[in-house]
Amino acid sequence: MVRSEASVAVGEEISVHPPKRFLFGPGPSQVHPRVYQAMAQPVVGHLDAYFFEISTGIKQRLCKVFGTQNELTFVISGTGSAGMETAITNFVDADTKAVVLASGYFCDRMSEMAKRQGAEVVRFEKPWGEYFGDAEAAEFIHREKPKVVMYVTAETSTGVFQRGEAICKAAHEVGAVVIADCVTSLGAMPVEVDKTGIDVAYSCTQKGLSCPPGLAPITVSPHAAELLKQRTKQCRSWYFDIGLIADYLMVSHRYHHTASATMFYALYEALSLIEEEGLENRWERHRQAHLHFVKQVEARGLQMLVPEGHRIWNLNTPRIPEGVDDAKVRATLLKEHGIEIAGGFGPLAGKIFRIGLMGPLATTEHVNEFLTYFGDALGKAR
Amino acid sequence: MVRSEASVAVGEEISVHPPKRFLFGPGPSQVHPRVYQAMAQPVVGHLDAYFFEISTGIKQRLCKVFGTQNELTFVISGTGSAGMETAITNFVDADTKAVVLASGYFCDRMSEMAKRQGAEVVRFEKPWGEYFGDAEAAEFIHREKPKVVMYVTAETSTGVFQRGEAICKAAHEVGAVVIADCVTSLGAMPVEVDKTGIDVAYSCTQKGLSCPPGLAPITVSPHAAELLKQRTKQCRSWYFDIGLIADYLMVSHRYHHTASATMFYALYEALSLIEEEGLENRWERHRQAHLHFVKQVEARGLQMLVPEGHRIWNLNTPRIPEGVDDAKVRATLLKEHGIEIAGGFGPLAGKIFRIGLMGPLATTEHVNEFLTYFGDALGKAR
Repeated sequence: MVRSEASVAVGEEISVHPPKRFLFGPGPSQVHPRVYQAMAQPVVGHLDAYFFEISTGIKQRLCKVFGTQNELTFVISGTGSAGMETAITNFVDADTKAVVLASGYFCDRMSEMAKRQGAEVVRFEKPWGEYFGDAEAAEFIHREKPKVVMYVTAETSTGVFQRGEAICKAAHEVGAVVIADCVTSLGAMPVEVDKTGIDVAYSCTQKGLSCPPGLAPITVSPHAAELLKQRTKQCRSWYFDIGLIADYLMVSHRYHHTASATMFYALYEALSLIEEEGLENRWERHRQAHLHFVKQVEARGLQMLVPEGHRIWNLNTPRIPEGVDDAKVRATLLKEHGIEIAGGFGPLAGKIFRIGLMGPLATTEHVNEFLTYFGDALGKAR
Repeated sequence: MVRSEASVAVGEEISVHPPKRFLFGPGPSQVHPRVYQAMAQPVVGHLDAYFFEISTGIKQRLCKVFGTQNELTFVISGTGSAGMETAITNFVDADTKAVVLASGYFCDRMSEMAKRQGAEVVRFEKPWGEYFGDAEAAEFIHREKPKVVMYVTAETSTGVFQRGEAICKAAHEVGAVVIADCVTSLGAMPVEVDKTGIDVAYSCTQKGLSCPPGLAPITVSPHAAELLKQRTKQCRSWYFDIGLIADYLMVSHRYHHTASATMFYALYEALSLIEEEGLENRWERHRQAHLHFVKQVEARGLQMLVPEGHRIWNLNTPRIPEGVDDAKVRATLLKEHGIEIAGGFGPLAGKIFRIGLMGPLATTEHVNEFLTYFGDALGKAR
């Protein structure tokens, strides 16, 4: 075909003119120019051989960032919350007893989704911002003997990183499957699905992977995959039915839904960038940016909400200093410098900032530059 | 901020190199260069004022292409099938009696989703490729007195366009809500939600709107919106809960999920292109391309599956001539010219071609060029 597809009489000027933002919030994070370029490549069909080449490449690269050898590693056509709903609708049924380790917003969302499935949800509750110790988590799970245990590896609402080894061990001792939310951690810090013992882990594209939002990576252990096969009732969701989606993307290539070549290109490119940089180099870069940030804000007299050793590297939550109007700080940064950060919400509203250091912005140079403007904005908001 | 986000040591070459395709299949359809350009604009946050500006613009433009004044007109973060599941999970519950007018694949999918909700599904079945007459449809609905009636306006598996006025009238006479699948029709031919009397209509972005896949436009009538408010039980799906999504996008702007600025830019741009061309001009262009296609293939001795007056303009289904190997035709077009078309499936496997004339490719010039190669490929496949 020689003719251009631009055959319709319209102008050449696009109508979308977003302001340039520096995304230092909890996500979406800054996108590398190569990812934008990848999305500008021509769409192919959702059954095209090239599409499956890309989806296979995504699977291989996702296995590395997830730290897993799970055969069942793929992508849901929805955002991170679609990943959460996929995990829950496939493994939590009416009357399933599910334990949720709850100390933040996303554990609440997991509880809510499980309740909507009709599950019996038992919550180990702690105040937002706290983490669960190995012994107390194991004890709770041993006592409750649930079928499913759910926790959040990196709680975006609080900045807490939750270790999972003891949780998974206890869960497996009582025969439960573990669902872990890796929405904020994946790509920025070690998730280590297999070593930790997580059965079902899901994430998003727009945080540690630094891609635009739109897809939800997910991985399912062989044990959990076996449970799916043994289901006697169908998953209530057709769109999130893991069996159908995995069959389309990885086995028969039989049409399920029209997956977006464009979004798959973006994720493939973002994962290629991670591979080129080296996954462990990338983790280390995020860790260094985080340590530098903490040192610098503490030197300026701010305190971190989360104790050392339990912090998410790519989402930092310093407390708002006494007498500072946090909305004013955020407005100054956004208006004067195009910098997005977030405040706390729920029980932490007005108490913390949520500052993301992710993807291309996770360097000490960017942290320094950010802190100049942040210090300025703090000064103006007293 | 002065520094670039390209601060990480990686090369400049992207890793995604799709072949150039001419998308004459049932979707995805060819994307206008301006839409690609829009997606390359920098991501803003899902709570950014600019994001809501874009989502408001999308709503206004969608109302026009849907032919509706429905306040509740917005976008689901998933593909067309996510739109279908949203409509069904919000309006079809366990024990809801739902009538499906079934003569193709997507009516079957609607039935399947409704059954998974536990609904009582009553199907008015006809062979694939047939349409429902006004009287017989009305009679069936009057007899069954369901709570929900579901039909497909443009059945992608067969090429049939189904008129909806009599269906909607009968449904309303028995107090039922009408869900209409507009996945293939929207943007390429009149949908006219309000005039037809449809209560809930959903679509996709990658067919008549000529955008990459990834979002599902949906519109809900005031009557159906009222029913949502009266629900006593929560929608089983949290991700597809219309109340929560609409509140986020259109009312309080309270965070629900991380909607993709990038995909919203794409849809906004695609809808701007439609506005610039003029919606009725666009419909007429698709109609002319269709009429020209039919005339030309009939002159070459092919027969259309669907009788005149009941055909989708942007998805044409000529029968495969006696003695032609359709897989060979498709392979020749793809390998030699990069042209994608589709075959039939289910009961129509090996019986029809499915040839899309959508978006920028829906011109008589493109049809002529396509037919040259198509005729060639047909000749080689005997």
